[in-house]
Amino acid sequence: MDGTTATGFDVQRIRQDFPILSQPQARGRPLVFLDSGASAQKPRAVIDAMVRCMETAYANVHRGAYRLSELATDSYEAARAATARFLNAADAREIVFTKNSTEAMNLVAHGWGRGVLQPGQAVLISELEHHANIVPWQMLRDDRGNELRVCRVTEAGEIDMADLEAKLADGKVGLVAMAHMSNVLGTVAPVDRIVALAHAHGAKVLLDGSQAAVHRRVDVQAIGCDFYCFTGHKLYGPTGIGVLWARLEHLDRMPPFLGGGDMISLVTFEKSEWAPPPAKFEAGTPPIIEAVGLHAAIDYVTAIGMAAIEAHERALVDHAMGALAEVPGLTLLGRAQDRGGVFAFALDAAHPHDLATLLDRAGICVRAGRHCAEPLHARFGMENGTTRASFGLYTTKEEVDLLAQALTEAREFFK
Amino acid sequence: MDGTTATGFDVQRIRQDFPILSQPQARGRPLVFLDSGASAQKPRAVIDAMVRCMETAYANVHRGAYRLSELATDSYEAARAATARFLNAADAREIVFTKNSTEAMNLVAHGWGRGVLQPGQAVLISELEHHANIVPWQMLRDDRGNELRVCRVTEAGEIDMADLEAKLADGKVGLVAMAHMSNVLGTVAPVDRIVALAHAHGAKVLLDGSQAAVHRRVDVQAIGCDFYCFTGHKLYGPTGIGVLWARLEHLDRMPPFLGGGDMISLVTFEKSEWAPPPAKFEAGTPPIIEAVGLHAAIDYVTAIGMAAIEAHERALVDHAMGALAEVPGLTLLGRAQDRGGVFAFALDAAHPHDLATLLDRAGICVRAGRHCAEPLHARFGMENGTTRASFGLYTTKEEVDLLAQALTEAREFFK
Repeated sequence: MDGTTATGFDVQRIRQDFPILSQPQARGRPLVFLDSGASAQKPRAVIDAMVRCMETAYANVHRGAYRLSELATDSYEAARAATARFLNAADAREIVFTKNSTEAMNLVAHGWGRGVLQPGQAVLISELEHHANIVPWQMLRDDRGNELRVCRVTEAGEIDMADLEAKLADGKVGLVAMAHMSNVLGTVAPVDRIVALAHAHGAKVLLDGSQAAVHRRVDVQAIGCDFYCFTGHKLYGPTGIGVLWARLEHLDRMPPFLGGGDMISLVTFEKSEWAPPPAKFEAGTPPIIEAVGLHAAIDYVTAIGMAAIEAHERALVDHAMGALAEVPGLTLLGRAQDRGGVFAFALDAAHPHDLATLLDRAGICVRAGRHCAEPLHARFGMENGTTRASFGLYTTKEEVDLLAQALTEAREFFK
Repeated sequence: MDGTTATGFDVQRIRQDFPILSQPQARGRPLVFLDSGASAQKPRAVIDAMVRCMETAYANVHRGAYRLSELATDSYEAARAATARFLNAADAREIVFTKNSTEAMNLVAHGWGRGVLQPGQAVLISELEHHANIVPWQMLRDDRGNELRVCRVTEAGEIDMADLEAKLADGKVGLVAMAHMSNVLGTVAPVDRIVALAHAHGAKVLLDGSQAAVHRRVDVQAIGCDFYCFTGHKLYGPTGIGVLWARLEHLDRMPPFLGGGDMISLVTFEKSEWAPPPAKFEAGTPPIIEAVGLHAAIDYVTAIGMAAIEAHERALVDHAMGALAEVPGLTLLGRAQDRGGVFAFALDAAHPHDLATLLDRAGICVRAGRHCAEPLHARFGMENGTTRASFGLYTTKEEVDLLAQALTEAREFFK
C-alpha cells in the first residue's frame, strides 16, 4: 500500500478523484491503466468544471455584449492566465490555445518556419522525437528547402551533446526543436544546456513538453527557451485543447496560420489586417469548454503540487526500474540518468501487440507499437515496435508490481 | 404558449432538455438566449455523453491494444459514421474531424487550394461570406497568386445569380466557396443552382454549412457539392470539434495540412508517407470527448427530426418578420425569400453595442458588431455593425415577442 508521503501526497486519496479508476472491469479485476503517456484519465474536478460551464455559463466568447458571453469570455481568458502561471510565462498574451500539441508545433513550423526562418537556415531535431516534431519540419523542408538536421541519441537514450554541438557549429541552425521528455524512452532532456548551446550558436529553441509538463514543474523563463508546447488531455484535462507558449516577440513577428474570425482587426476583400497575439493565432470559435476543463486540470495538479507529483513519480520510476530488471527476457529501451515514468520494452521475441493483448486480459492497459516515433525504434533496431507502460499521478507501486508479474507470466505463455 | 405542432415538435418539452435555460437569472428574469447563431446551448444528452465517456470509457484512440482504447476508438469512429449519415455522405471516410469550421475551410484552402488548384485558377466567393470563408482565400491569393473573385449580393441579400454566372463565364474559376446560409442575413443560398452553374463551368463547390446544417436537413449527395463543413458547437454539441466533408477523390488528391502522429503510414528522416483519408488529415490526438458529444448532438436533433426543426424555425421566422416589422425605426438587413432564423438590424441611430447592452438588462442575449462579416456590413453601408438575434430549436414565439417589445422600449430610451 502506498502511504502518504512526506509531501502529503496520498495516491489512494488521489485515485478516488478519478471516477474511471473505480469503474467495475471485466472479471472483477481493477483497472490498471498504464497508458497515461498516450492520454491521461480525468479527475472529477475537470469533468465537473466542463459540466458547470455547459449548464450555467456557456456562450461564445469575445463577441458578445451580454452577461453570459462576458462570463464565458472571462472563463476562457482566466484559463489562459492560469496556463501562463502554470508555465511561468511573463505574459498571458504569450499563450495560444490550439487543438493539441501537434497543431502547436505545426503553427510554429508554418508561422515561424515560413515567416521568420530564413532560406539557408536549418532546423535541428533529434532521433528521439515524436512524429509531431518530425513531420512538420519535413514538410517545411520539402516546401521551402530548409535543411533538416538530426542530432544523434546515445545508446542510453540521451541526446548526444557532442553531436548537438557539432551540428550547431556552422551557425546555420535557426531552430532546435526537441522533446523535453521522450514519449518512448522517458528521457528528460538537459534543456538548460541545450538552450545555452543553441542560443550561443544563434538558434532559437522549441521544446515539445507534451510529456514533461505533466510530470515536472516547467518554468519557461528559467529554461530560457523560445517556444514550448503541451496538450490538455495528457495533463488530466480534456481532448481538443493544446497550448503553444512563445515569447511575445516571436508571436509578433509570426504571420498567422489559420485565417478566419477573431484573428483579424480589419477585413476588406482587398486585404485583411491581423489582430495582435494571441488572437492572431486563434481563428474561429476556440475550445471554450475545453479551456475551462484545462483550467480545472491545472488547478488540480497545482493544488497537489508539481513537486509532490514529481517526487511520487521518481519513487515509482525507481521502483519500476527494479521490478522490470527482475523480469527475465525483458529489454528496456533507453537508460537515461534523468528519466520520467515512461518505459518501452521488448520481451524476448513476443510481438508487442500480442503482449499488450495478453496484458489486457489481466486488466493492464499498455500500448504497443512505435508510439509515433518510428525513427527512434529504427535507431534501436526495434522496427517491430515496443510495448510501453507509462505512469500518471494515480499510478501505484502495486500496479507496477502487477505489470512485472504479468510480464513474467507472459514470458511463460510465449515460450 | 407554443403548443405541440403537427410534427410532434413541442418546444416547451425541448427546452427542458437544456439545463442552462432553467438556470435562475439576475432579477428573476428568464434567460432569453437569442445568440444561437454564434453558439448554441447544450442539451442534457450531450453533456451526459461527454461525462460518460470521461467516467467510463476514456483512452486515446487508434493506437491501443487494450479494451478501453478499443472502446474509445469505436466511439470516435461511431461519431464519424453518425456524421456521415447526418450529411448523407457516401462513405464515412469522407468525414474529417477538425477543431471548428474555420479549420475545415483552411484545410481546403491549404490542401486543395495549394495542392490541387492550378496557378491561374481563381476562387469565387460572395459579398455575404463570414471571414472564415474570406481570409483563407486571401492568404492563398497572397501566397500563390490565385485570383479571388467576389460575387455580388442583391439589395434583398441574395446571391446575384447573373453576377455569379458572369464571374464563372471565362472558365477560370476552380472553386466556388459560399455560405449555405448567411450568418448575418439568414439568406439560404440556392445551392442546387449554384452547384449546377459552377460544375457547368468547371469549378468545384465548397459550402460553409456552419449555420445551415443546424437548421435544415443537409444531403451532400443531393446537393452535389464537393466540400461541406459545419461545426459542433452551433449544432448543440461541444466546442473543439468541426467537420469537413469532401468527396473521397478530393481527399485522396489533397496533400496533408498538419503533420504529426496518426496521419502517416511511414516515417523516416528522409521522407514520410501519408495514411489514407481521413487519417491523413487528423494529425495528433483528435477531439475524442468532443466527437462523443457531437455524436450525441446529432442523435438528439435527428430524434427530433430535422424536418420538424425546420418547420418550427420557419414558423418562428414568419412570426419574427411580422413582429420586427412592427418595431418603429428598425431596419432589417436583407429580405431574402428563403431565409433562416438569423436577423441583423439597426434601430435608428442606436449603436449596436449599446442596444445589445440594453437588451441584456431585459435578460435578452443578442450579439452586436459585424459578426465576422465586415465586407457584408460595408456592402449595406452598416460599417458600425448591426445587432443580431439568432434562433435555436429551443427558441419560442414568446421570446421573439419579448425581443420586439424590448426593441420598441429601447427606441424610447435612445430618443
